[in-house]
Amino acid sequence: MAFSWTGRVYWEDTDAGGVVYHARYLNFLERARSDWLRSHGFAQSELKERYQRFFAISRVEIDFRHPAHLDDELDISVVLQSLGAASLTVTQDIHRGDGKLLAAARVRVASLDTAAFRPARAPEEILKKLKTELR
Amino acid sequence: MAFSWTGRVYWEDTDAGGVVYHARYLNFLERARSDWLRSHGFAQSELKERYQRFFAISRVEIDFRHPAHLDDELDISVVLQSLGAASLTVTQDIHRGDGKLLAAARVRVASLDTAAFRPARAPEEILKKLKTELR
Amino acid sequence: MAFSWTGRVYWEDTDAGGVVYHARYLNFLERARSDWLRSHGFAQSELKERYQRFFAISRVEIDFRHPAHLDDELDISVVLQSLGAASLTVTQDIHRGDGKLLAAARVRVASLDTAAFRPARAPEEILKKLKTELR
Amino acid sequence: MAFSWTGRVYWEDTDAGGVVYHARYLNFLERARSDWLRSHGFAQSELKERYQRFFAISRVEIDFRHPAHLDDELDISVVLQSLGAASLTVTQDIHRGDGKLLAAARVRVASLDTAAFRPARAPEEILKKLKTELR
Repeated sequence: MAFSWTGRVYWEDTDAGGVVYHARYLNFLERARSDWLRSHGFAQSELKERYQRFFAISRVEIDFRHPAHLDDELDISVVLQSLGAASLTVTQDIHRGDGKLLAAARVRVASLDTAAFRPARAPEEILKKLKTELR
Repeated sequence: MAFSWTGRVYWEDTDAGGVVYHARYLNFLERARSDWLRSHGFAQSELKERYQRFFAISRVEIDFRHPAHLDDELDISVVLQSLGAASLTVTQDIHRGDGKLLAAARVRVASLDTAAFRPARAPEEILKKLKTELR
Repeated sequence: MAFSWTGRVYWEDTDAGGVVYHARYLNFLERARSDWLRSHGFAQSELKERYQRFFAISRVEIDFRHPAHLDDELDISVVLQSLGAASLTVTQDIHRGDGKLLAAARVRVASLDTAAFRPARAPEEILKKLKTELR
Repeated sequence: MAFSWTGRVYWEDTDAGGVVYHARYLNFLERARSDWLRSHGFAQSELKERYQRFFAISRVEIDFRHPAHLDDELDISVVLQSLGAASLTVTQDIHRGDGKLLAAARVRVASLDTAAFRPARAPEEILKKLKTELR
């Protein structure tokens, strides 16, 4: 069962083409990942304070299939594909409320040290929880 | 009973000061107003198609009292203060989930004709519904 | 001679109404203020590191007169209206490249301590420079 | 000689991690592409009105190497890699003012019909101009 996040398209997300501005999808993807971590018990604000770690995006691939419009409901999945000590990869699909696939993304996330901004092992507690998602 | 909208602060809303970027509060206010209209049965995308009208902001006053942080829950009220044929004014408070008042705004909204971008009487149906809020 | 900042409207600034999304004007105003401070020799990133201060917005009033469109050039003024030890007020007009007034704002800025987020005297060096604008 | 666009990082572009929010780089890339088209004599607002076409993003791949910070100057290149009747692909590098490579992207752009939102041959005039870039 993949984690799924539901949100809505507001004026701020659209552009003069009448549809959602392409970069905004990355914002939606990030909100979904944040709530996915939260569903595992990790608020990123605590991650920083308790572990001196934060997650940074190191790579994004995204295919835009169909545009989203004002007032559309969006469902965004988060599926963990791989998990290393200092990085993880997820795939995320963006579906409209009626089930139409709008965009598909693959996102690589790095665990960084808040001081040096360098790759650093993610907290053991998080790695353990996330590992349960891999199978 | 004022309408209230609940949302959360994500990374995209914050800035390098460690708190929510001031302009983002206007985005939150707008999401609350959109869902307030929706609670009355009006999706703004239909407003445009069915009535050739849309709501534009003509004036905003906002006082920032305390900053919001990553992961904070925000509750945003919408209280109708006055209603004319082609404009309305609402006050909107932004409270943190624990009840602390973060910001207070007054927003004047104009009903415009989609073609000419000029003030034009809002649909009767909407005026009637909103009037019930003024008691 | 008021300080003036020139920028352009891109897709990201517009919304499905075909014009600039209202909250984006606050972003433009902030870019203008940042470059106004820079014109006085102060980069805000240094302000934080050297003086443990940063500027936060405490109040905005803005009137939207006419909409800006994709590709429009915008000229934004910054006129210092008052200057205290820990706060200042500016007025800022947004004109389109052809001289049409699109929006007029009054913004109150507070000097805060980066640690406590409380009002704190701005660096003397900055106060001195800005004072010359009040004549 | 690749087209290059220069811009600056403002507060709005940063997040509470102290660096530029990852999705904002896509905004910067788009501003660079818009000005690249403008350098060929095409404002996208006219494209829509004169030719009933607009450019939509169909795929983005982006690698984030190093973070950008408040006040950084960014130089963004646009290099045309391939050009079809209804799509084109560009690569875009984001360098900091001092020459450090921060991010590298590949973006596929589709020419769409404004009414049907379907792939449609780009205006001949534009294809001809862009073809000169492929050498």
